[in-house]
Amino acid sequence: MIRVNNDILGKIANNEGVFADKINEGIQAGHIVLLNNNVRVMDKPCAVGKGLTTKVNANIGLSPEYSDVKTEIAKLDTAIKAGADVVMDLSTGPQLKSLREEILTSCPVPLGTVPVYELACNKSKRFFSMDEDDFIEVLQKQAEEGVDFFTVHSGIKLETTKLISTNPRIINVVSRGGALLVSWMIKNQKENPFYSRFDDIIKIAKKYDIVLSLGDSLRPGAIADATDQLQIRELLVLGELQKRALSAGVQVMIEGPGHVPLDQIEANVKLQKSICNGAPFYVLGPLVTDAAPGYDHITGAIGGAIAAWHGADFLCYVTPAEHLRLPDDDDVHRGVIASKIAAHAADIVKGIPSAIKRDNEISKARAKRDWETQFKLCLDPETARKSREKSLPEEEDVCSMCSEFCSIKVMEEACGKK
Amino acid sequence: MIRVNNDILGKIANNEGVFADKINEGIQAGHIVLLNNNVRVMDKPCAVGKGLTTKVNANIGLSPEYSDVKTEIAKLDTAIKAGADVVMDLSTGPQLKSLREEILTSCPVPLGTVPVYELACNKSKRFFSMDEDDFIEVLQKQAEEGVDFFTVHSGIKLETTKLISTNPRIINVVSRGGALLVSWMIKNQKENPFYSRFDDIIKIAKKYDIVLSLGDSLRPGAIADATDQLQIRELLVLGELQKRALSAGVQVMIEGPGHVPLDQIEANVKLQKSICNGAPFYVLGPLVTDAAPGYDHITGAIGGAIAAWHGADFLCYVTPAEHLRLPDDDDVHRGVIASKIAAHAADIVKGIPSAIKRDNEISKARAKRDWETQFKLCLDPETARKSREKSLPEEEDVCSMCSEFCSIKVMEEACGKK
Repeated sequence: MIRVNNDILGKIANNEGVFADKINEGIQAGHIVLLNNNVRVMDKPCAVGKGLTTKVNANIGLSPEYSDVKTEIAKLDTAIKAGADVVMDLSTGPQLKSLREEILTSCPVPLGTVPVYELACNKSKRFFSMDEDDFIEVLQKQAEEGVDFFTVHSGIKLETTKLISTNPRIINVVSRGGALLVSWMIKNQKENPFYSRFDDIIKIAKKYDIVLSLGDSLRPGAIADATDQLQIRELLVLGELQKRALSAGVQVMIEGPGHVPLDQIEANVKLQKSICNGAPFYVLGPLVTDAAPGYDHITGAIGGAIAAWHGADFLCYVTPAEHLRLPDDDDVHRGVIASKIAAHAADIVKGIPSAIKRDNEISKARAKRDWETQFKLCLDPETARKSREKSLPEEEDVCSMCSEFCSIKVMEEACGKK
Repeated sequence: MIRVNNDILGKIANNEGVFADKINEGIQAGHIVLLNNNVRVMDKPCAVGKGLTTKVNANIGLSPEYSDVKTEIAKLDTAIKAGADVVMDLSTGPQLKSLREEILTSCPVPLGTVPVYELACNKSKRFFSMDEDDFIEVLQKQAEEGVDFFTVHSGIKLETTKLISTNPRIINVVSRGGALLVSWMIKNQKENPFYSRFDDIIKIAKKYDIVLSLGDSLRPGAIADATDQLQIRELLVLGELQKRALSAGVQVMIEGPGHVPLDQIEANVKLQKSICNGAPFYVLGPLVTDAAPGYDHITGAIGGAIAAWHGADFLCYVTPAEHLRLPDDDDVHRGVIASKIAAHAADIVKGIPSAIKRDNEISKARAKRDWETQFKLCLDPETARKSREKSLPEEEDVCSMCSEFCSIKVMEEACGKK
């Protein structure tokens, strides 16, 4: 039995337009997760999973060389304003604790972290000399602080690390947390603490109502590596762990690829749903080509739309800076909007009534050349308005593309107003 | 029998990595079109259709209020530099003839037009008083000048116009050329000249080896209007006309939607291929939501990737300015790149060897942190390079996202270089 706060559930049910009982049923079945650490009060808690709108996560965070808290808080604000439903702090920079404290004070949406990063950044103890207790301790501390969900790369085991060097991948491990764990296991020749101590993790998650986001260390980082034996081997372990956590009353979601060609995305979603017992699927992209650095918000929106259409529940945004550098404020904005587009396009075909209504209303406004309503309803009103105002036509009801030859106006003159 | 210039065919075969005989077979079967008016010599003629790379078209052109030839020529250069395979001049502004002349002198790729626009812009004779001969005359003139393909909205008939006002669409006609023809038919109560005089059109096309691009006046302009009876009724007419043209030795491609939800795109492609006898499919988007003005290059890239994956051959770009205003230079660049991404992602799953090779090579370079090779191989080297240089890390082989925690580097240190 998963403990659910009824006030929060009611709020979410109201926002989603879905009965609270139905959402609770999904939570108990492991098909929906509710992101809200019980020590934290926030404006916009959210639930992720079956029958709900597709959610979007924005990553922010310090890097070793760019570690200014203010800059990251500005990105947080940008992400929220653009419509991010959830935020992850992926900091690996020295000011990591101050940033998290600040986020937890002000962030209106759920916060996720990858706790192994905090271990890796620890200056007083080297990462490779950390022991299992250190891994559990960092989870405990972050739980107390109020983090709503953890990425734990529990699915990669010592035995799998032996396959990595002989596996014919183009890029063996592209998950930062995964690479850290693999190298810890190789250097220490010990089992992954997030696997061996999974019961301790369950206990912490249960106490704070934290959602475990089971990370995919072996997600493909190149189109050619997609859906290979390493990826699926890890997925099988994640499926087992999801079952264990759920039966202990802990909520789980599963992280997914990665770089995946167009024709393997549906299969990846179906496989995850089957192997992981219908748990919510949180995909990182997927990116449908490796060849578009500078535009991976677009490659990710293509993959994300297809994944969500086929049942993925949660899209991790990808910014134009992916593969190139730490994203700046503008990248964060563009990344969130691109993922929101993908999520919304999928929600239309998932049959989410509010998504269909939104498109119909904006198109009705378009048919009337009612610009204010179009701006009000579109995914990024400010950008749309600015774009239009860049070159206004003389007649204010049309646009500078067609002016007097506006098809809608030409038709109105020929057939009369609808 | 379709006449094919063997020199041009050889050049194209070489670029595509496909035997000339195979391409010619596709041309004769009506599954491939070769865009090159026989009065024109150009650097990069191209073929569109089965077994070939997915092509991208960029629209440029004057509008009634923005009619500066130089500005449009700059956009042409931008489009070509970004990788547009084909360009259409959709001018409806007063300087339309000067612009076309200039394009035909300098443009290295095939040029398409929508000749009805020239009639609509004519200042000496009002559009509604044009007669059938005027429609044919403008085609004849543009053919002599060297235009490589025409959009002719031959599929919409007088009888269909009667259904438009009673049809429960949110937006009845969003095709500019289509709206002009419909209103001409309604006002004159005469059959569409592009239908009634189709044999004359065939004659002109045959003489100059022009490809007819049969326009879709009734493409959906809202998600809710997709794949409705009006759209399919027109498609059925296009299928008949394609057969007539082909048997007269004239090449044809078919234009397609428009606004289409994710789950109807594949069906639209399959339907077109079946109804139109395997003719190349030239899609305008498709846009997978109505709600993202300012970002329709992304909604179009999502739809375009899915369409091309399922067999669409030619993507008409959509710019961020779509639905808002005439695109500027930056919009043209972003529009072309977004469509190139969609085309390339589709080519990977279409099994085009060069597309697969490109992704594998860039990923191999990524695994080695060989930045120069990544830039060389990516779809927009300049943007990628600028982005990375915006925040370089101290160690030059990694990026500022992860720095010392670069997963590839961490793995290399743990497992040794591959």
